[in-house]
Amino acid sequence: MEIKKPTLIIDMQKVNNNIDRMQKKIDANITIFRPHFKTHQLKEIGDVFKKKGINRITVSSVSMANYFANLGWNDITIAFPINILEIEDINILAKKINLNILIESVYSISKLSNKIKYPIGIFIKVDTGYNRTGLQKDNPEIDSIIKLSLANCKYSFKGFLAHAGHTYYAKGKSEILNIANKSNKILNELKQKYIDSYPDIIVSYGDTPSCSIADNFEGFDEIRPGNFTYYDVMQYHIGSCSLNEIAVAVACPVVAKHKQRNEIIIYGGAIHLSKEFISADNNFKLYGYVVKFTYNGWGEPIPGAYVSSLSQEHGIIKMPDNYFDDVNIGDILGVLPIHSCLTANLLINDYKLV
Amino acid sequence: MEIKKPTLIIDMQKVNNNIDRMQKKIDANITIFRPHFKTHQLKEIGDVFKKKGINRITVSSVSMANYFANLGWNDITIAFPINILEIEDINILAKKINLNILIESVYSISKLSNKIKYPIGIFIKVDTGYNRTGLQKDNPEIDSIIKLSLANCKYSFKGFLAHAGHTYYAKGKSEILNIANKSNKILNELKQKYIDSYPDIIVSYGDTPSCSIADNFEGFDEIRPGNFTYYDVMQYHIGSCSLNEIAVAVACPVVAKHKQRNEIIIYGGAIHLSKEFISADNNFKLYGYVVKFTYNGWGEPIPGAYVSSLSQEHGIIKMPDNYFDDVNIGDILGVLPIHSCLTANLLINDYKLV
Repeated sequence: MEIKKPTLIIDMQKVNNNIDRMQKKIDANITIFRPHFKTHQLKEIGDVFKKKGINRITVSSVSMANYFANLGWNDITIAFPINILEIEDINILAKKINLNILIESVYSISKLSNKIKYPIGIFIKVDTGYNRTGLQKDNPEIDSIIKLSLANCKYSFKGFLAHAGHTYYAKGKSEILNIANKSNKILNELKQKYIDSYPDIIVSYGDTPSCSIADNFEGFDEIRPGNFTYYDVMQYHIGSCSLNEIAVAVACPVVAKHKQRNEIIIYGGAIHLSKEFISADNNFKLYGYVVKFTYNGWGEPIPGAYVSSLSQEHGIIKMPDNYFDDVNIGDILGVLPIHSCLTANLLINDYKLV
Repeated sequence: MEIKKPTLIIDMQKVNNNIDRMQKKIDANITIFRPHFKTHQLKEIGDVFKKKGINRITVSSVSMANYFANLGWNDITIAFPINILEIEDINILAKKINLNILIESVYSISKLSNKIKYPIGIFIKVDTGYNRTGLQKDNPEIDSIIKLSLANCKYSFKGFLAHAGHTYYAKGKSEILNIANKSNKILNELKQKYIDSYPDIIVSYGDTPSCSIADNFEGFDEIRPGNFTYYDVMQYHIGSCSLNEIAVAVACPVVAKHKQRNEIIIYGGAIHLSKEFISADNNFKLYGYVVKFTYNGWGEPIPGAYVSSLSQEHGIIKMPDNYFDDVNIGDILGVLPIHSCLTANLLINDYKLV
């Protein structure tokens, strides 16, 4: 592997397996699979999905929708509260593809209404407990938004959408499934309330922990996980994946060693890995696990080795005694990222498929 | 200000003032000013320095050295432990500019020795207490590195260099000055030890807290602060700058409001601001202060308003009651970043000078 600076190594076999596993579950549930592309943001990973027959996707910004629309993707949901300042770009997109947007206020849909020029799908963002964005199920704005979307022939009311981001803070499988079940109940209460008037509406749900752990998606008409494509150390800690299923590692040159502290300095810092960390008691911070590369991928994490600190370009690896001398300056070590979405975004121009 | 998505707004008047203030102090000390360009990484900010007569710079990677060398900068120190895998690029640079590199091991300089084709300056990285990189002053490798650098006619031994990154964790002015003084003492002990044999060696020091707070640079032949160009909330908390001196703010569209929680959702997340935060008791995390833009810049931070949480693209602002209703969806709010180096790196293609 000819690597000279921090590079995202993407194990395509693992990506394939991760997608296959998720697709198999979804197919068994006769649910729509609309994967979130914000994790990878890459044409090549999109192509893997495309080859498996997936043609509906989720993105998190208008820019990302543009990128994938230009690559031929023609059914895209922008899963982010609509930014009314980007109406021109939204119109350009809506003209050429099936575009769905998220609405969570009467204010936004009113501001848009006289500016939307092409047919567009409207999902109402519902807050099922994450408390980040979305409307509570009993909020009267839901009814008002539906009425406003009906009043404009360009709008097509598609249903209710939620992201249960609080699964990221859940402890264990049953807590995650509880969140998924609660979200399911809330979304379906709303669906039942409106299905007679709008028989085509659906319920769309997505987050990697729920979708990785649940086997039964009954009640969810569409699911939208994204991170599962790569997974990462955070998902491993949540219980969504095994360490073996993490499909990306950042290749980092070793630039210095400090034996008295058992520390190895890598070229690979916050601008490559992101400052996302997992913390524990006693001020312990984990910025990534450490692996060695093999001829076609990488091995298990080195026991006891971890990235303990990051500066802009430097990473510090705490390396146990018994592995310290095996590593030389000029070697390449791999770092399994804490949050692959942020790491992949930082290395969007520096990646390699293996 | 025509802004549709997260954009780094750079107040050029503040940048100018920040540079002038630092340059004035440095001129009074007859010290070399070699500013670190890793904070801004921009041609336009480089031009401001150039117009003030500054022609020696510091960068943190070979890529960054390449970028600025291509813009005509011809005296560059790469303040990062040399990455021996990039020797080809280093040779290309050394051929066309005055290039200085950092060495902190016999291993690295030995590996380089038969591959260096053009004259290159060697600084020995000294650890003055930060414990990240560099050699302790009494480490015998220092002597060996100097001997090796003397043995190769391509090398020119330039002196001793330190980065006192532990000033970032210091509490108050006197603790920062203590660190600077201690570093000064260590570096000058080394200089005195070798000055008779190498009369041209210098002592190079740099970090924004020290250089902002100290007035007297006696003993430092060169200083290399970088962050002071923009400053940020972290520097404000350390005591390096006032809030008024922070020269960058990220313009973020407001996309949703949640009155029951006094929360405003902005398009502006971890991939725009970085996940750097300042924490306090009770799990409080601060990801940025909030400002409103004026016709030519921005005002004081809104009292009590702050970015409390970041997802990939979303930011959540806690907005006090009395300001909440003044902000509408579609407005642009500014966020003063916690760590401007990371934020500027993320928005390297999305910035605007005002």
